[in-house]
Amino acid sequence: MEITIIKIGGNIIDNPEALPLFLDAFSRYPGKKILVHGGGGMATHMAKQLGVPTQMHQGRRITSPEMVKIAAMVYAGWFNKMIVAGLQQRGCYAIGLSGADANLIPARKRPVADVDYGEVGDITPDEINTGIISYFIFKELVPVVCSITHDTHGHLLNTNADTIAATLSIALAPFYHTRLVYCFEQKGVLSDPQQPDSVIPLITRQSYLKLKADNVVSDGMIPKLDTAYQALEQGVKEVYIKHALHLNDQLESLLIL
Amino acid sequence: MEITIIKIGGNIIDNPEALPLFLDAFSRYPGKKILVHGGGGMATHMAKQLGVPTQMHQGRRITSPEMVKIAAMVYAGWFNKMIVAGLQQRGCYAIGLSGADANLIPARKRPVADVDYGEVGDITPDEINTGIISYFIFKELVPVVCSITHDTHGHLLNTNADTIAATLSIALAPFYHTRLVYCFEQKGVLSDPQQPDSVIPLITRQSYLKLKADNVVSDGMIPKLDTAYQALEQGVKEVYIKHALHLNDQLESLLIL
Repeated sequence: MEITIIKIGGNIIDNPEALPLFLDAFSRYPGKKILVHGGGGMATHMAKQLGVPTQMHQGRRITSPEMVKIAAMVYAGWFNKMIVAGLQQRGCYAIGLSGADANLIPARKRPVADVDYGEVGDITPDEINTGIISYFIFKELVPVVCSITHDTHGHLLNTNADTIAATLSIALAPFYHTRLVYCFEQKGVLSDPQQPDSVIPLITRQSYLKLKADNVVSDGMIPKLDTAYQALEQGVKEVYIKHALHLNDQLESLLIL
Repeated sequence: MEITIIKIGGNIIDNPEALPLFLDAFSRYPGKKILVHGGGGMATHMAKQLGVPTQMHQGRRITSPEMVKIAAMVYAGWFNKMIVAGLQQRGCYAIGLSGADANLIPARKRPVADVDYGEVGDITPDEINTGIISYFIFKELVPVVCSITHDTHGHLLNTNADTIAATLSIALAPFYHTRLVYCFEQKGVLSDPQQPDSVIPLITRQSYLKLKADNVVSDGMIPKLDTAYQALEQGVKEVYIKHALHLNDQLESLLIL
């Protein structure tokens, strides 16, 4: 059986024109599927409104206990339920989940090395509750997973949504032909960042190393592609990088080993 | 098979000392169970912080679209996930749900009569998705349901948590020996509000009418008891009114027909 894990970013969720179009596309997407989403700007905006300072270290957020509370409210409360209600409206039998629900994604608070990232959860494929995911999928439910996990000791943690999508995919790979789709605001991996249509249709491990060496892929894209190749190396069959509003089009970058 | 639907109020959830004690008691409560919770003061407090006005009409909140967003964040985001993480910590296999998830509780926006209550959802037992609830329960999951519903057309709605608990109980009554427990800050229905131990141990339909006629029960208790009797008349076997921190004690008011 095939399954597709689709990850969308904050810039789609935060955009009241784009989100309904994405939900149309997602609900039409064929086969078994899981949606993974983060939050984006709204949590930061809300923290500002509530007077909670946003701490950053080298472009990464440091998650204070107040910030994980806001993240839970925005990701698991507002976005997750708004997406689920929007999918139900479209006849898609969605169920919203955090990593705490049904102990779906147990995490470990990231150990303090040079930097204390705060309430951030590191996760591994082995610990994902694949049994309950399969059970939901068998029951025709469509899991909508937000980027909140828990430490199994009563604390909520923040985990990067790209990482959740990849880790879920790796965890499901022994049981399904697993496909991972990273949706974002471009049509794929571009050979020229100035040319939105310069999508590289096929990337292999070998060609990716060359693209990196030649500085063709942008710095922002590298962590996503590295995560994608880690997923492929651990059993995920295909990774697609494509525009969130072109989910059902062939316009995309396909990554294989 | 027996099932117990336990409802807790905002004053327990909002209280960082009381909540862990309640979660201890709930996780030890025997048999199949469902937890229903509202939110209480935090949503109002948060609305104030965010500059969203709280409108009231005859003691009932008018729910603006901004307010339902805050309610979704506080109830479905923070409280629901914090409770689920706390129960998982205690070995209770909880899954947090709003009425939108798995189309659990479809609702209808309350029609505008004299007052427009805004984004408030009315619900009926017939429309509850009892199939999926039974499926979760069969899988040993413990549903934790927050007081957010949806209109099946993409909008989230606010529904009173007491009403959700009663309606869920009525919906499950044809399939299970169903027990409804309203937890709150007193030890039961009191014969003398000044005496916290003056718990009336047994109330029947007939004795309730007399208690009402004699003005023994307080005004705040009457809607809860009326809802309880509606549940009993529609197949729920027993209703208990008791203190949230005495969940496993015999100190309680038992309501029967």
